[in-house]
Amino acid sequence: MNINILQNKLKEGLNIIGRGSSKSTSLPILKNVLLKTYNNFLNLSATDLEIGIKWWTPVKVDKEGELTVPYNSFSSFINLLPNKKINLNIKNNNLLINCEDYKTQINGISAKEFPIIPKIKEKEKIIINSSFLSDSLLQIIDIPSLSKVKPEISGILFSFKEKELKLVATDSYRLAEKKISFKKNNKDDFSFIIPQRTAREVVNIFKEINKDVEIIFGENQILFRVKIEDTNEPYIELTSKVIEGNYPDYESIIPKKTKTKIILDKDDFLNRVKAASVFTSKVNEINLVFSPNEEEVIIKSNNKDLGNYETKIKGRAEGDELNISFNYRFLLDGLNNIKSSEIIFEASDENSPGVIKPVGKSDFLYVVMPIKN
Amino acid sequence: MNINILQNKLKEGLNIIGRGSSKSTSLPILKNVLLKTYNNFLNLSATDLEIGIKWWTPVKVDKEGELTVPYNSFSSFINLLPNKKINLNIKNNNLLINCEDYKTQINGISAKEFPIIPKIKEKEKIIINSSFLSDSLLQIIDIPSLSKVKPEISGILFSFKEKELKLVATDSYRLAEKKISFKKNNKDDFSFIIPQRTAREVVNIFKEINKDVEIIFGENQILFRVKIEDTNEPYIELTSKVIEGNYPDYESIIPKKTKTKIILDKDDFLNRVKAASVFTSKVNEINLVFSPNEEEVIIKSNNKDLGNYETKIKGRAEGDELNISFNYRFLLDGLNNIKSSEIIFEASDENSPGVIKPVGKSDFLYVVMPIKN
Repeated sequence: MNINILQNKLKEGLNIIGRGSSKSTSLPILKNVLLKTYNNFLNLSATDLEIGIKWWTPVKVDKEGELTVPYNSFSSFINLLPNKKINLNIKNNNLLINCEDYKTQINGISAKEFPIIPKIKEKEKIIINSSFLSDSLLQIIDIPSLSKVKPEISGILFSFKEKELKLVATDSYRLAEKKISFKKNNKDDFSFIIPQRTAREVVNIFKEINKDVEIIFGENQILFRVKIEDTNEPYIELTSKVIEGNYPDYESIIPKKTKTKIILDKDDFLNRVKAASVFTSKVNEINLVFSPNEEEVIIKSNNKDLGNYETKIKGRAEGDELNISFNYRFLLDGLNNIKSSEIIFEASDENSPGVIKPVGKSDFLYVVMPIKN
Repeated sequence: MNINILQNKLKEGLNIIGRGSSKSTSLPILKNVLLKTYNNFLNLSATDLEIGIKWWTPVKVDKEGELTVPYNSFSSFINLLPNKKINLNIKNNNLLINCEDYKTQINGISAKEFPIIPKIKEKEKIIINSSFLSDSLLQIIDIPSLSKVKPEISGILFSFKEKELKLVATDSYRLAEKKISFKKNNKDDFSFIIPQRTAREVVNIFKEINKDVEIIFGENQILFRVKIEDTNEPYIELTSKVIEGNYPDYESIIPKKTKTKIILDKDDFLNRVKAASVFTSKVNEINLVFSPNEEEVIIKSNNKDLGNYETKIKGRAEGDELNISFNYRFLLDGLNNIKSSEIIFEASDENSPGVIKPVGKSDFLYVVMPIKN
C-alpha cells in the first residue's frame, strides 16, 4: 500500500469505525483496524465479532495493499498530527506514516489474520433518514432489560408494517413504543430484534450524518448502510447479529381504556418528581393522588430516616379520583424522552399500568407498572 | 429558627460549603450541614475535621435557632426548587422547608452534636486577590507527591519573603515554583505547607469570586477568608490544618547555570511530545536531541512491540549539543502549566535536571529530572 490522505479525513474514518474494535485481550487481532485499498478507495474495518463497522473514502492509490495495526495507538497518533497530507506506506508488515516532519513506523499484523465481517443475504430493505432514526432510537434506547434470562427483551424490536416502523423496548416494568413513517412500501410485514449495543452504535455513528440510511435485514443479521453521496459506493456499513427469539406480545399490555386522565406541563411535573425523589426509600416509591375535581395531582414521598415531601401540580383533568404509586426512576425515564411541552398521564387503578404520552402527537407511548401495595 | 431566603442564595451557600462535608460513614454528623442564625445572618458550616468551610448571608431572622441536616439530601432538594422565597423553620429537631406549593420536612440532628471548627490564633496575615491566587495554585497543584512517606512534599509550600509569595510543589522527580507579588509588607518572613486537598478547595471556592482573600496563619492552622463587600463581616471562611515538618531546601536543586538553551513554540513542542507519547514504553521515555547548530530539537520515542517515532522542531538555540531523555508525562505537566506562547528549555547534561520557563516572564519555573541511562 502506498497512498496519500488528509489527516482530517483519516481521523474521521478512525473515529467512525473505532467503536467496532474490541477492548478485550482474548483475541488481540480484534484490537486492530484493517486498512485496505480497493480500486481508488481506502477501506477501514473494525469488528469485535458481534458487530462490524466499515468506512470508505476515495484516495489516490499508488500501490494496493492491506494490513492491520493496533486501533488505539494508530488512532491516538493520527489525532495528534496536524491537518496535512499523510502518506501511508506498507513495508514488511509495518505501516510507515509520514506527515511533514513526523516519521513513524507502526508494527502491523497481516490482514489475513483479520476476521471476515460476513456479507448479508438481503431479504428486506427499507430507507430512513439517519438523524431521524437516531433521534427515535434515543427515545427508547435506555429501556431494555439488562437481564440475560430473557434475551429477547434485552434488545430493541424493529417492527415494520405497511408504511410504519415501530421501535419497541421494555424491561417488563415499563415499555416504550416509538412510531416512524417511512417512504418505501415493503412487500411483507417483518420484524427483528437488535442488541441494545448495536442501537447505541447506530446512534453514535449516524446521528450527525443526516443522510439516508438503508436498513437491510438478512438471515440473523442486520446491516445499516450509508452510501457516498450521488454514487452507489458504500460510505459506512454497520453489520450486527440480531437477537433470536420472539418478542413478547407487548400490544396486549397497553391499556385500551383508562378511567383517569390529566394533562400536565411536562417540565413542571418532571421537576416535582425529581424533588420527590430526594425523599424516597429503597423501592424509589412516590405516591400520586389524581384529583380531577380539583384539577390537580398531589405528589408525595416519604423516607422515615430522612423526612417527607408533598407538592401539587395543576392540570386539565377528567375521570375518577386515583391514588397510585410509581418508581420515580421509571417516571423520569418516560418523561425525559417525551419531546412535547405537555403530557397526558392516564391510569385506571392502583394495580394497572399508567400511560404517558405527548400532547398533540401520537408517535410515542410510555407504559409504566405501578408499585402495588 | 424561622427565616426566609431566596432559593438562589441558599443554593450558592450550599454549593460553597459542600466540599467541606465528609463522605465517610464513620462519623455520620460530618455528613451534615450546620444551619445557624446569628444576629441578622444565616451561617452554614461543614467540616470533615481536616478542613472546615463556613458561609454567611444576611437574612431577616424571625426567630433564632440552629440545627444540622444531611448535606446531600438537603442540597439536592434545594437545587431542585424554583428560584423563589424559601421559609426555613425548625420544629422539634426537624427542618420544615416551605416554598410555594412545596412542603417538606427533613429530620435533623441537634447542633450540639456538630464539631466546633477551631478559631485561629492569628500570627501573620496577608491579602491577595482570590482569582489570582487560584490561578497561581492551579499552575502547580498537580505536582505534589502522593506518597505518605514524606508528608511535607505531599503539600504545597507557601513561602513569604518581603513582598513576594512563592508557591512550591515537588514530588522529587520534578518541582514547580510560582512567584506572586502582593501588597502587604509583612513584618517577618514566614512559611507553611498546606495539604494538596486544601489547595484544591481554595481553588474551587475562590476561583470565580474575584475578591480580596485574607490568608491568616496561626498555630498549625491556616484560614482563607473573604468578607462581605464593604463590611467587616465574614462571607466565606476555609480553615485547614497545615502540614508539620520542614520543606526540603528546594532552591539548591534549581540549576544556576546551564550549557544548552533553546527557545521553542510551546504548543508545537507540546503536540510533538504528545505524539511521541504514543510510542513510549513502560518508563514513558522520550529522547530529546538538542542541536544548537541546526537550531532544532529532535524528538524520538520507541516501543519495541508497537513501533517508533521521530520528529523535529525548530527553535532559537545556543550552547552545546545534548542528548537527554525524559518521562513525557513530566514534560507535559510542566508545559501545560506555562501560560506563554514560547518557552525556554535549558539543560546541561544527560544526568542533570532540565529547566522549563516561560519567555518574557520570570514568575514560573519547572525543574524536571532526566531519565538516566
